[in-house]
Amino acid sequence: MAPPTRPTISTGLRPILSLSRPQKGEAIKDGRLLAKGLNAGPGAATGRVVFNAPDAEEWKKRGEAVILTRIETSPEDIRGMDASEGILTARGGMTSHAALVARQMGKVCVAGCSVLEIDYTTHTMTVKGKVVREGDWISIDGTTGEVIEGKLPTKASEVLQVLIDRTLDSKDAPVYQEYAKIMQWADKFRRLRIRTNADQPDQSQNAVAFGAEGIGLCRTEHMFFGEGKIGPMREMILADTEEERRKALAKLLPLQRADFEGIFEAMAGRPVTIRTIDPPLHEFVPHDEPAQRELANQIGISFERIHHRIESLHEFNPMLGFRGCRLGIIFPEITEMQSRAIFEAAANIQKRGIKVEPEVMIPLVGNVKELAHQEAIVRRVAEEVLRESGVRFKYLVGTMIEVPRGAITADEIASVAEFFSFGTNDLTQTTLGVSRDDAGRFLIPYVEREIYAKDPFEAIDRSGVGVLMKMAVEKGRGVRQNLKVGICGEHGGEPSSVEFCHTINLDYVSCSPFRVPIARLAAARAAIAFPMRPAAKAPVKGTVKKTATRRRK
Amino acid sequence: MAPPTRPTISTGLRPILSLSRPQKGEAIKDGRLLAKGLNAGPGAATGRVVFNAPDAEEWKKRGEAVILTRIETSPEDIRGMDASEGILTARGGMTSHAALVARQMGKVCVAGCSVLEIDYTTHTMTVKGKVVREGDWISIDGTTGEVIEGKLPTKASEVLQVLIDRTLDSKDAPVYQEYAKIMQWADKFRRLRIRTNADQPDQSQNAVAFGAEGIGLCRTEHMFFGEGKIGPMREMILADTEEERRKALAKLLPLQRADFEGIFEAMAGRPVTIRTIDPPLHEFVPHDEPAQRELANQIGISFERIHHRIESLHEFNPMLGFRGCRLGIIFPEITEMQSRAIFEAAANIQKRGIKVEPEVMIPLVGNVKELAHQEAIVRRVAEEVLRESGVRFKYLVGTMIEVPRGAITADEIASVAEFFSFGTNDLTQTTLGVSRDDAGRFLIPYVEREIYAKDPFEAIDRSGVGVLMKMAVEKGRGVRQNLKVGICGEHGGEPSSVEFCHTINLDYVSCSPFRVPIARLAAARAAIAFPMRPAAKAPVKGTVKKTATRRRK
Repeated sequence: MAPPTRPTISTGLRPILSLSRPQKGEAIKDGRLLAKGLNAGPGAATGRVVFNAPDAEEWKKRGEAVILTRIETSPEDIRGMDASEGILTARGGMTSHAALVARQMGKVCVAGCSVLEIDYTTHTMTVKGKVVREGDWISIDGTTGEVIEGKLPTKASEVLQVLIDRTLDSKDAPVYQEYAKIMQWADKFRRLRIRTNADQPDQSQNAVAFGAEGIGLCRTEHMFFGEGKIGPMREMILADTEEERRKALAKLLPLQRADFEGIFEAMAGRPVTIRTIDPPLHEFVPHDEPAQRELANQIGISFERIHHRIESLHEFNPMLGFRGCRLGIIFPEITEMQSRAIFEAAANIQKRGIKVEPEVMIPLVGNVKELAHQEAIVRRVAEEVLRESGVRFKYLVGTMIEVPRGAITADEIASVAEFFSFGTNDLTQTTLGVSRDDAGRFLIPYVEREIYAKDPFEAIDRSGVGVLMKMAVEKGRGVRQNLKVGICGEHGGEPSSVEFCHTINLDYVSCSPFRVPIARLAAARAAIAFPMRPAAKAPVKGTVKKTATRRRK
Repeated sequence: MAPPTRPTISTGLRPILSLSRPQKGEAIKDGRLLAKGLNAGPGAATGRVVFNAPDAEEWKKRGEAVILTRIETSPEDIRGMDASEGILTARGGMTSHAALVARQMGKVCVAGCSVLEIDYTTHTMTVKGKVVREGDWISIDGTTGEVIEGKLPTKASEVLQVLIDRTLDSKDAPVYQEYAKIMQWADKFRRLRIRTNADQPDQSQNAVAFGAEGIGLCRTEHMFFGEGKIGPMREMILADTEEERRKALAKLLPLQRADFEGIFEAMAGRPVTIRTIDPPLHEFVPHDEPAQRELANQIGISFERIHHRIESLHEFNPMLGFRGCRLGIIFPEITEMQSRAIFEAAANIQKRGIKVEPEVMIPLVGNVKELAHQEAIVRRVAEEVLRESGVRFKYLVGTMIEVPRGAITADEIASVAEFFSFGTNDLTQTTLGVSRDDAGRFLIPYVEREIYAKDPFEAIDRSGVGVLMKMAVEKGRGVRQNLKVGICGEHGGEPSSVEFCHTINLDYVSCSPFRVPIARLAAARAAIAFPMRPAAKAPVKGTVKKTATRRRK
């Protein structure tokens, strides 16, 4: 069969790709529809309702399938989300915490289902007058956004059974055969490399099975919620002195190192971009009194001191607050510990004969001096570890471009950064002045009234955010010709955004593991549609004119 | 005497200008220094400590001078701030709510004095082990940031006594004579016009006395906290239907109209830029249960409904939330009422023989379609009122440029906007990804470590925010040659920012009334330092090259 032309790729692949997640059977339409939310993580899931993360883990241990149902999720819920078949939330949009994490984990998710009245104290939710209790069965369809009462059969995906579960031989899976053939064609054409956003070895393995060529974003903060880590993390946050902080960091070092070893091993020589700690610290500490009292007991300081310390972490606009590289600049010992964990893990894995290619990424840089400050720490620790271990490997230090000032001063920043990665979630928030968590009240009507053609958190806003991205690429490469540039925002797995990334000459896109096949296809489509001097043809308005044509080596 | 050269203006004027606020006497250094905060509103004030706005009003009624002392202030405190001699806060920076409002009112202010432990329940504050109680005397120096125990004499400013208080004849005031002479020189040289940020007739009069040539920013939201207005405002916010909302708006219309009449009258023919409602609605409603219960009684709906409605207004990042023109787009009846109030007031004042020049300004525009939506409402109402009243006057419709996307798409926006005004507070927040309210923990160390040369909320960040401003001016005037462009962010009264505004060819700067003399001087200095083709000489890095030289008519 000859490689297909563009329309064939587009129309032919959708039904196959939509199978790469558990599918509900025919029975779903006979079920009772309770509500409709946003289709935030495709596929179908059925399980018993639980209303908090610890309950999800407990029911799961008893062998039950659960649907974690929350008003909204937060980083504290990570383990409970992992234990669930699906996630259902009453608030939040397509790039809310629940939606992002669910897609990364490959979980089914229905988000922002605002008619659900969830009551955490009674462990019930009320919808259309019906009361659903903890333990009741519900089903959610993350492809349509439907929430259905009761248990429903689901159908496994052939592609998943071959690639992820390894329960089916590829020879016995005709749908998989088609999938594999089309992916081969796509890979022949695409210029963009495809990476994945993953922070667990199993996620990384899934992504590789789907064709990921590296990790574009490993969020270290998700790791902090793992077994045994949240305690020392909280000690570190609540420390009053550098000495106390260093003591807690010393406990975290071996735990983070082990995490990174798992990732490097799973990626087997592919490049791994690890972002230093990014979210505001208050996301890691408990905000209710009982949990604060428990924490006080655990780490042996008074409840009052803990309470006061946590209160002082409060911010009016945490998205624009004390986070990203600002943390590492005020507390350089955190960057130091994280760098050590990364490079010691890399050295250990390389000693075991597995190649490593670590790329350390500094978040939220808007000023080259921020990056220079952090880069100096990373390089110093790297050289120490290389010397101590006697191992040699290459590493890069780069930055996220996720505030407008980063794009505007990209020429200055590229004098230090060896790579850029566009954090288009945050870049969209700051460029438009829109918080993705708060946008529901106006962004949906905005799209309906065609003020924005599409939700800018789904598809890159080319005439706003896109202009800054183009500016950053050209200013950056003007100073450093071989600057590697990618994207690790949610847009990296959305077809029209992948096309845009191709046209402005990015080197790679990075997306959640289950979106990797879509990104591969979209990259091929873009390469066919915009085969040469792509930037010149890009449908984007900008002020910068000169563009070099770059092709993958 | 010949007009001075630049150094003379610079050095000669500082001591005179520093007198344009009440001054402490010699005794201050003998007083007991309690703490030091940010010098957020210059001058010195002495009074009795009160810990909330209603107490400030009550003590004031009894004839007492008070210092309003808060952890931080919010729009609800406006009337209490107005009743106080000075304002002291434990949190917040140079552009916090307390600092902004204090400067606009001409109040002394010390902000972000973090060592104060303020306890609202016991009406005390503890500092260095000393307990200060409600009613105790303290003094604050807003020029140095000092907080001093006890009562201290202050010395009135000659300039103020002549211009504002009218208690001194200019002939008997040698300091005033010098002031007036230097201002004359300045006015001869400057190209920039000077406007003021004011939303009360008395503030406007003060500004005119200082030489303001118009209002650059009238924030309508401050008016909503005035006598009799907050009730209907809250009804409007808590309304469930458009009909209920229109009922509440009908009550607000005559009150807003009267406010605008006062402003137009005070400005006597000078242009007045009025911004439609901007802040998130939750700023106008009470957040504690007793106040919510009282409100429920007042407007006759259940506490539960009010409580639920107010909860639903909660936002994670209100700065990036449901505010600005987003309010007017979702609730067009608000823009309609405000437009009617503005134009009916203008018509009434013009009928009384006073010329009016209203300019309606739409906030937080990032997309031309947002502006076009609001502009259509404003123009429709304007034409209705002109027809109904039989009066003729000119009016303009324009926009704030305060999110990066507004600057990036300024060419599109200028196809609708007749003027731009840079909201550099918000533009700095979004361009840098820094919330001014949360920046304390890292921005002060950042300035100390020279990551930023100056606090970007004080002096315009030329290589980041400045690049966007320059881009907006040039893209905007590329489409509409006579586009009027100004600035109404706090930077409009800061000398180096005024210089930058001159070099990028703005038409005017607008600042708080008491900073008008400084702005006049700074504008003259800039005109002397950058006399021709200023944009070409501007020390700013940008991508846009062509600039027309523009001079004031």
